[in-house]
Amino acid sequence: MIETDILIIGAGPTGLFAVFEAGLLKLRCHIIDALPSIGGQLTELYPKKPIFDIPGYPSVQAGDLIKNLYEQIKQFQPGFTMNEIAKTIDKQPDGTFIVTTDKGTQHHAKAIAIAAGLGSFEPRKPLIDNITDYEEKGVEYFVKDPEKYKDKKIVIAGGGDSALDWTIFLADIAKEVTLVHRRNEFRGALDSVEKVQSLKNQGKVNLITPAEIVGIQGSGKVESLVIEKEEQTFEKEVDYFIPLFGLTPKLGPIADWGLEIEKNAIKVNNALDYQTNIEGIYAIGDINTYPGKLKLILCGFHEATLMCQSIYNKIFPDRKYVLKYTTVGGIQGFDGTVKEAEKPVVKSIQ
Amino acid sequence: MIETDILIIGAGPTGLFAVFEAGLLKLRCHIIDALPSIGGQLTELYPKKPIFDIPGYPSVQAGDLIKNLYEQIKQFQPGFTMNEIAKTIDKQPDGTFIVTTDKGTQHHAKAIAIAAGLGSFEPRKPLIDNITDYEEKGVEYFVKDPEKYKDKKIVIAGGGDSALDWTIFLADIAKEVTLVHRRNEFRGALDSVEKVQSLKNQGKVNLITPAEIVGIQGSGKVESLVIEKEEQTFEKEVDYFIPLFGLTPKLGPIADWGLEIEKNAIKVNNALDYQTNIEGIYAIGDINTYPGKLKLILCGFHEATLMCQSIYNKIFPDRKYVLKYTTVGGIQGFDGTVKEAEKPVVKSIQ
Repeated sequence: MIETDILIIGAGPTGLFAVFEAGLLKLRCHIIDALPSIGGQLTELYPKKPIFDIPGYPSVQAGDLIKNLYEQIKQFQPGFTMNEIAKTIDKQPDGTFIVTTDKGTQHHAKAIAIAAGLGSFEPRKPLIDNITDYEEKGVEYFVKDPEKYKDKKIVIAGGGDSALDWTIFLADIAKEVTLVHRRNEFRGALDSVEKVQSLKNQGKVNLITPAEIVGIQGSGKVESLVIEKEEQTFEKEVDYFIPLFGLTPKLGPIADWGLEIEKNAIKVNNALDYQTNIEGIYAIGDINTYPGKLKLILCGFHEATLMCQSIYNKIFPDRKYVLKYTTVGGIQGFDGTVKEAEKPVVKSIQ
Repeated sequence: MIETDILIIGAGPTGLFAVFEAGLLKLRCHIIDALPSIGGQLTELYPKKPIFDIPGYPSVQAGDLIKNLYEQIKQFQPGFTMNEIAKTIDKQPDGTFIVTTDKGTQHHAKAIAIAAGLGSFEPRKPLIDNITDYEEKGVEYFVKDPEKYKDKKIVIAGGGDSALDWTIFLADIAKEVTLVHRRNEFRGALDSVEKVQSLKNQGKVNLITPAEIVGIQGSGKVESLVIEKEEQTFEKEVDYFIPLFGLTPKLGPIADWGLEIEKNAIKVNNALDYQTNIEGIYAIGDINTYPGKLKLILCGFHEATLMCQSIYNKIFPDRKYVLKYTTVGGIQGFDGTVKEAEKPVVKSIQ
């Protein structure tokens, strides 16, 4: 059982920043996310796109914002349960919660912060009848550990940035990389398209277009794919099949937790703390709704901050918290690090 | 008469960011501030201090945050009435407002955003009977235009960072710089103290400590100061006297505008838009209060954003605004500039 003060569901910018504000209040956080990496849609959907409305950043690439947020929170040592989906929640007689994931990992927390954005991102799967039989047996919807493809034959399917970028990246690692797409045209950053063209010209990647994977074969694991090109089918031996057809968000099991839902969002009380209809469960960021709600990252930051204060008051009803500015008080990490402003000297001039 | 959509009172981080959010909605802003420079207390009180709780910035110097915010908003061409204090407000029959400053500048706006932080910062003045007679006649509480001190004799009084920093800066410009402080010890950044020591050793600045300015003389303008040192007084010829004894915030004339005030802060409705008890007047950032309020810069950013939406709906009751993400839609400046994400290409690979 993982023990924490605040269990955060969702590792997007709002969930990450909640770790910081909780840390200032000496509260520990643990994060569950369905994706293998932190950052939510910023990392998975648009890591290289600029965001223009983060206050103080005239422009920041989504992926860099996530890196900076992690740099900002790391001294508060958040725990992570990645690549799992929060499935069930059980409120205990003492008001605490036990949350269990789809893989059975259990978490015990004093408060729950749902920061799940549009919901958990699930991969769009190709329509191949027996594909689920081969999941984690050669079929992978995310590249988690590129090194495992060393000396292996892989097929990537897809026509967007993810398919292009991983084709480029894995060309240096795998024994053989084949990119299959149902059109001749790819849609992505110009330099990615050009780089794949160049790798193809050099014979470093195979390109099969316009074509589709229509079957998977193998005993116990993927051994070959059936590819259809121009109304002909043929087989290709592979070790791994990586379909990269994008992600689709689903509210998922959270929808069954007894929370008030309105248009796919969780209703919260915004008068104070963004708490839901269940005491101790909060919803912050894009997943919540209240009158005047704007689904902006900067609003999630504010909501996370007020939520942490509310949770602090709930956990320590007898303590009076006096807000200390970080400029004045600095930051004391759980890892022993201290960040603070240079102290002024008092020194005579002779 | 200056015409604008939103008149913002206060050029601190919250007021500046409101310009950005208004600009996304094609609303124009004009800012009034009592100080000569933008940034509020971040610029005047702690420009070199790091802030650790701006989301996405593990650490940022207050002065740099203001520079970045200005860089972020400049394409929306805000107007500025600096160095003046908003004094009176008159609601017009059509619901618009006319705000007049202490210097008589008039502004006509559809909505008012009070983002005045702790209030208007006013300089702490030395206790010299006739000092007000010489204000703007040789006595200056801020250094606005360093070039005016070229070939002039100046006396700076004070023992903190401002006094040290301006002594260093003006040593290269003025004919003669004298620093007077009532103690031998200065309180400031170590390198500033050391730099002043070194300038003194080189004979580039005069230091008179422990001493106080006790009188100002001159006909129509400052001609000399009376300085008391170790119970003896003497006169010193000067062109300018710059006392830098810090700033003290005052709610000031805003307190008489008929707004509901609670503990020196303006009460707002936080359910939607941070509007005050007077329709069309909003209060955002450190100057407002509501249940759960935290006086944090990041909360001011959120409040500014929701306020702008509310003002938009008020000005254009018939238009339905659909939130566009800057990552998707880019930014169209009033100056004709456009910032946007690089568009993906659709290109075949042969």
